[in-house]
Amino acid sequence: MELELVRWLSDNLPSHPLLRIGIGDDAAVLRWPRDGELVVTTDAITDQVDFLLAETDPRLVGHKALGVNLSDLAAMAAEPVAAVVSLVLPRNGGAGFDAKGLAVELYHGMLPLAERFGVAIAGGDTNSWDGPLAISVTAFGRTTERGPLRRSGAKAGDAVLVTGALGGSILGRHLSVEPRVREALLLNERYQLSAGMDISDGLALDASRLAAASGCGVALRLETIPVSDDARRLAERDGRSPLEHALGDGEDFELLFTAALDVAEQMVREQPLDVPVTIIGECVAEPGLWRRDTNGVLTSLEASGFRH
Amino acid sequence: MELELVRWLSDNLPSHPLLRIGIGDDAAVLRWPRDGELVVTTDAITDQVDFLLAETDPRLVGHKALGVNLSDLAAMAAEPVAAVVSLVLPRNGGAGFDAKGLAVELYHGMLPLAERFGVAIAGGDTNSWDGPLAISVTAFGRTTERGPLRRSGAKAGDAVLVTGALGGSILGRHLSVEPRVREALLLNERYQLSAGMDISDGLALDASRLAAASGCGVALRLETIPVSDDARRLAERDGRSPLEHALGDGEDFELLFTAALDVAEQMVREQPLDVPVTIIGECVAEPGLWRRDTNGVLTSLEASGFRH
Repeated sequence: MELELVRWLSDNLPSHPLLRIGIGDDAAVLRWPRDGELVVTTDAITDQVDFLLAETDPRLVGHKALGVNLSDLAAMAAEPVAAVVSLVLPRNGGAGFDAKGLAVELYHGMLPLAERFGVAIAGGDTNSWDGPLAISVTAFGRTTERGPLRRSGAKAGDAVLVTGALGGSILGRHLSVEPRVREALLLNERYQLSAGMDISDGLALDASRLAAASGCGVALRLETIPVSDDARRLAERDGRSPLEHALGDGEDFELLFTAALDVAEQMVREQPLDVPVTIIGECVAEPGLWRRDTNGVLTSLEASGFRH
Repeated sequence: MELELVRWLSDNLPSHPLLRIGIGDDAAVLRWPRDGELVVTTDAITDQVDFLLAETDPRLVGHKALGVNLSDLAAMAAEPVAAVVSLVLPRNGGAGFDAKGLAVELYHGMLPLAERFGVAIAGGDTNSWDGPLAISVTAFGRTTERGPLRRSGAKAGDAVLVTGALGGSILGRHLSVEPRVREALLLNERYQLSAGMDISDGLALDASRLAAASGCGVALRLETIPVSDDARRLAERDGRSPLEHALGDGEDFELLFTAALDVAEQMVREQPLDVPVTIIGECVAEPGLWRRDTNGVLTSLEASGFRH
């Protein structure tokens, strides 16, 4: 099976200007064309936890496996370059495909995303076993001249911003991840950002992480948080509020970032992206996560995030 | 659990001169100090296939997970630089440990090997689920001035060589992998090698792969193949011959490589490694895998290798 898949990959993986040796040797070799910094992230997704293979088009599963890793590169404002894919396949396949067919579908889900972001699928490893499907992707990128965008640079007084609208990704967006790579690169190039990350475990939890990494607090103005239509639809079903979903749901894969207030206000005026950029609060000296009401009063906010 | 593990890793992963940002942000950042080539390999190992968690010290499992990846870097004659680790843990742990404890044991198995080879553990991802243990490691390294050692450079007339002795790794060596990183770098620096790989699926199968990649054949002189003590012990138990084990058993993780005959003879005279270097045959024009008997006659040899 692995041999057949290697053949399929050799025929179907596109070439890439930086990929000198791809599938078929003991390792891949990439040209690394300039002194600089290599950004690396690895993220695995697994059946029953991150997707339900029996109910999901495996191409979407493949898309998600690569997408969550590209989102991590976006979180560092790094340009994606390449990825390697490690598949652990159920021996008898799944979603109506045998093991090789399932692997091919997963790759079919990854390839368009890889192409859109100029990512070389540089290699992989394919295993089969009696357990469920697990897909581990490792993605590589380069920092730009601005250097990496870290979680740790926010200062009291900075504005806190997000891209897009939050909550309810379980209705489908958690699979059709749209990694904010171009958005992060553009924002980081055009404006002076102080810190950033992607929202993978819910706004509240991830905002508290950004605050902790930066040694400050984050105060959210709840009424300014952009709530997605998905969050509203989900709220109609389950009786929780749309805002609760926007604060607590995982896998938005939007950008959460900070900048000096005047820079943030300029960004919001200019709206340089195809998705909205919104100021949702500010960094404060007091560590932790806070809500600031319309009278300016701070109260503690629970940092409960995504629970699988 | 993941949070506790991240804390443990932050406290226990050593710093590394090239690692600018390690555990704790969205991705790791490494200094890539010179123009050059990035060598990347990914290999997953799974419970019941590559090890039996219930019967194995998890530190050995961790050692193997990193070791097989370093062996792939050795196969390319690349200097290891860093690795990232993706764990998919049984929710209730295993081998007598809870999930976090199991993760810590796996890392305890990797860290000494990482230290010996100067490998930064740059980051990781930790998941838990209802399935068995799977560990995916992605390792990356740099080529030396010689460039990567490929499978595809062998020519008819070249000698075929191996390091060490082969067969019977199932008695323990398949876990206590000793990646031939230093050996590969030394051989590739001091001698002109034409092709190389590591033996992971058995000498016969891997030699036939090297031959296919190089567009030639390989003729083995069976009486010259170095047979390990493990292969002999295993043969006493199962009635197969020690040579069959040396040819067919997987996971030797020795180097299989080729060089012009005079270079190979010099290597064998000089024995520059702590492990033996042995000529076991030569490349021939006729594609495929062959045995050459002591009268020089070629007959076809089955390329059956390791089957899990």
